[in-house]
Amino acid sequence: MLPEIHIIGLTGIPEIAEGAKLGDLISAEIKKQDLPLNERDILVVTQKVVSKAEGRIINLKEIEPSHMAIQLASEYKKDPRLVEVVLRESKRIVRMDRGVIISETHHGFICANAGVDSSNNTDIEKVSLLPKNPDVSANNIRQSIHMELGVEVGIIISDTFGRPWREGATNVAIGVSGINPLKDYRGQSDLVGYSLKTTTIAIGDELAAAAELVMAKLDRVPVAVIKGYHYNSGDTGINSLVRNPDRDLFR
Amino acid sequence: MLPEIHIIGLTGIPEIAEGAKLGDLISAEIKKQDLPLNERDILVVTQKVVSKAEGRIINLKEIEPSHMAIQLASEYKKDPRLVEVVLRESKRIVRMDRGVIISETHHGFICANAGVDSSNNTDIEKVSLLPKNPDVSANNIRQSIHMELGVEVGIIISDTFGRPWREGATNVAIGVSGINPLKDYRGQSDLVGYSLKTTTIAIGDELAAAAELVMAKLDRVPVAVIKGYHYNSGDTGINSLVRNPDRDLFR
Repeated sequence: MLPEIHIIGLTGIPEIAEGAKLGDLISAEIKKQDLPLNERDILVVTQKVVSKAEGRIINLKEIEPSHMAIQLASEYKKDPRLVEVVLRESKRIVRMDRGVIISETHHGFICANAGVDSSNNTDIEKVSLLPKNPDVSANNIRQSIHMELGVEVGIIISDTFGRPWREGATNVAIGVSGINPLKDYRGQSDLVGYSLKTTTIAIGDELAAAAELVMAKLDRVPVAVIKGYHYNSGDTGINSLVRNPDRDLFR
Repeated sequence: MLPEIHIIGLTGIPEIAEGAKLGDLISAEIKKQDLPLNERDILVVTQKVVSKAEGRIINLKEIEPSHMAIQLASEYKKDPRLVEVVLRESKRIVRMDRGVIISETHHGFICANAGVDSSNNTDIEKVSLLPKNPDVSANNIRQSIHMELGVEVGIIISDTFGRPWREGATNVAIGVSGINPLKDYRGQSDLVGYSLKTTTIAIGDELAAAAELVMAKLDRVPVAVIKGYHYNSGDTGINSLVRNPDRDLFR
């Protein structure tokens, strides 16, 4: 038997309002669509619906930009209120150049605009922020699905990040529950006394990337179900994918 | 009908020798295994088997390290001949610190050790280099498969690269044929007069990442077949995924 993985996009989930129980809505839709969900299947859920459910939406009308935000916005021809939100969501500015702000979020993620997203909102004055604690968000969804459908699944919360050196963004994991997002092959290839290649694979990010292939238009397919992938259970959370500053050559 | 993608790992491909016709070997194995291959399916092929077929294997015994390689190797406790090969495969050193050499290859890829790989070779004195022109490698495989099996498929040559800020490596595309590796969503979300989020998706890298999930132990599953993904045909090659230095904040 050849190894095989299936990735299924879950359509039909209604528009998410603040306070919505996302895990319950996903479970209901899985039942309604008769999608068989098995133990150790993986659900990848986009950040956007998680942020909506958790009320992580900011109305720019309520934002008073700081002096720094006004100055930057004028330089970059951006909305100063938006720049203010980006600064508030940032722990540290990594690069600020050519109209782009790359910063480190309070979670430790390094991405453009601290993950603040103005796209795909019906109201152009509203922007979405990353969930406060995406591992908790993932865990809540996992618990709901276990309650509603009786199966233990792995959950990944995903977002789309750019990266240095390569064009185009890719989906990455920003929260996990029930899965160890790193797979370690070290020792298997260490024939010359040291590894030339990194042999730890960020399977959390690869699963998120794979899910994006069925999500495409983000708002209409906010959940993907991945079947057939053998992962290690674990509750290390997303921190195991965030590189320690001491090990990072590109701070 | 829910959107669905299948990823199948192709086992059974024999050990690849220099001069092997990789496309023919893959076609033969697909026939032998009765794997239905359709128009617009995608094959992801690992760099390792491509490099072997193309004779991009170097015996370290034949390498005379330069003064610089000897000095660096002593500092990093590495094999000076290996460091010499890495330097030869590099156009530019991006970072050199803590025993890690991050360089830009002649293709423009930025990765550890210029993609030189000492793992998984039966002979510890042999290291593999990236294919000289992975787009050509991909195109050759595509032509063979069209000849042998009569279907037009998309081909991605993949390798596993680390990245800044995040732990673990992920599979990325280093060569493509028949697929446009970038998918552009711009204009769809540009509601506020500018895009806060990158809306061009590197689907070439996401497909490579998805394929890694069935490849796992790299040498035994050197090919993955992806079915059901709708891509734009194109012959832009891998260059469209390589960021122009002018647009890069992390040179």
